[in-house]
Amino acid sequence: MKKSEFTFIGDIATMFATLPHHGFEPIGDDCTVLDMGSESLVITTDMVVEDIHFLRNISSPEEVAHKSLMVNLSDVAAMGARPIATLLSLSLPESAQGEWSEAFMRRYHAESLKVGVALVGGDTTASRDRITINVVAIGRAPKECIKRRSAAKPGDVVCVTGKLGASSKGLVDNMFGDLGTEAARIHRLAQARIAEGVWLGSRSEVRAMMDVSDGIASDIRHIMEQSGVGAEIELSSIPTDYDIRFATTGGEDYELLLSVEATSFEQLANEFEEATGTTLTAIGKIIEGSELRWLENGLPATLDLKGFTHF
Amino acid sequence: MKKSEFTFIGDIATMFATLPHHGFEPIGDDCTVLDMGSESLVITTDMVVEDIHFLRNISSPEEVAHKSLMVNLSDVAAMGARPIATLLSLSLPESAQGEWSEAFMRRYHAESLKVGVALVGGDTTASRDRITINVVAIGRAPKECIKRRSAAKPGDVVCVTGKLGASSKGLVDNMFGDLGTEAARIHRLAQARIAEGVWLGSRSEVRAMMDVSDGIASDIRHIMEQSGVGAEIELSSIPTDYDIRFATTGGEDYELLLSVEATSFEQLANEFEEATGTTLTAIGKIIEGSELRWLENGLPATLDLKGFTHF
Repeated sequence: MKKSEFTFIGDIATMFATLPHHGFEPIGDDCTVLDMGSESLVITTDMVVEDIHFLRNISSPEEVAHKSLMVNLSDVAAMGARPIATLLSLSLPESAQGEWSEAFMRRYHAESLKVGVALVGGDTTASRDRITINVVAIGRAPKECIKRRSAAKPGDVVCVTGKLGASSKGLVDNMFGDLGTEAARIHRLAQARIAEGVWLGSRSEVRAMMDVSDGIASDIRHIMEQSGVGAEIELSSIPTDYDIRFATTGGEDYELLLSVEATSFEQLANEFEEATGTTLTAIGKIIEGSELRWLENGLPATLDLKGFTHF
Repeated sequence: MKKSEFTFIGDIATMFATLPHHGFEPIGDDCTVLDMGSESLVITTDMVVEDIHFLRNISSPEEVAHKSLMVNLSDVAAMGARPIATLLSLSLPESAQGEWSEAFMRRYHAESLKVGVALVGGDTTASRDRITINVVAIGRAPKECIKRRSAAKPGDVVCVTGKLGASSKGLVDNMFGDLGTEAARIHRLAQARIAEGVWLGSRSEVRAMMDVSDGIASDIRHIMEQSGVGAEIELSSIPTDYDIRFATTGGEDYELLLSVEATSFEQLANEFEEATGTTLTAIGKIIEGSELRWLENGLPATLDLKGFTHF
């Protein structure tokens, strides 16, 4: 009877598709979008669960706060919107109701301050023995700046911001107690690409966009399915300092995966790097059909690459 | 080091007060309010935790779904707004990933359909052994219809919709296995006062409003604090079929607690009952100062009534 997360979400989306939508777009992007006239609101939510997403004896409350906030801000940035506020629900066992929760809140506050997002609501409750955190992030953007997974077209350049793989390599380092590595530090402190998302949102040459949450091998399929296209990815082009498996199937890098109108790509990438200090690297192209082709130096690659599944 | 929920929330609100608010009102009402021009959006979130808010061997998945949705819809109604959408996060242990989650979703869908709210986002994740549910509800209303806890004025009539106490009496009945009582049925099936909230929102004679979540003995203090007023409550006027302690300190009735400009009360209550089929009962008045006075047949009452605290 056990179902994968994606099947369950698919079933839910189908079940609720016939309900009145009140101006909200159907489920399928990093955020839901509510059309408010010339502006749109985007809203997303993510749950972070002790012993599933973090271990209390390995991750500090500060790191858990950081991660809980960043996964949500990253989803907002992936829509081309500016995050403006969050709501925070905390379920805390007695062992986390004092120092743990205070350290968590101090870091949540510091990161909120850094990116200028308000805390506008939430809930606190007890739990029997494990911590559960739910964050909702709300963003805002001019209507025409909102980017969706469904907008990729054959011929588009597929590209990513920054470098991939550090976060999942760092997760492994953390698990083995190698807390001092560069990857471990990135895993604990990676920042959502907020300024980058807003900048890319403002450019019409950018078509589909999403954040890298489960690894590009899994995430590119969402763009393919929603846009009704295929894709060709060149492994040797993927920007990474680590094993290609971390770079393709590891999540939580908070990088953005996007498709750009091909003739504009080079100019856009230069302007983007100048404006944000972040690189934009071409890793493949959108093709007709529904196939995902992996290439290595132009030849078909044989790696079986699957993204991370939560269940 | 353990703190009560209200202290923790107070600390959090103070900590985040200096952040840019981006058009959101400060924390303190049933929902946060975002001004979108002529209309306002209201947003709220509540977390429901296994072994804190429900026991899996007593509450069915249908009842848990019902409760998770209603507590949030009730918060939206309490603002005078119409709920339009929810986001649902589910953290499910393996034992709840099949039939339990499907039964939960069927009921969540049925209740959403009944009140016409969309499901626009969410998250599903595993957990080690207990279920955690987080619901976000979003509502919409003309700006002038939004009701706040801060708007009560001395002289206002304090009143409640429907009857109080059945839900908490029913909770006790359920715990003792008396599932067939009227109160137990109400506890499992009580509906948020959505049409009532929207109707009351449209009337300028209604000043402060909130929903009864922790019992009026606790909840009236929020109106008093936010409005800078006192209140006088007549115990014999409280509409209930049960012990006065259930009616004053028991929560989850999903009734609305409000203050109404005194000279308009009678006319308003008649029109309200005609329009919605629900009673509106005067139980006291707003007074100058900061004191909460309990009366019994006009004389000072000696009961020490405290609302429910989550921690």
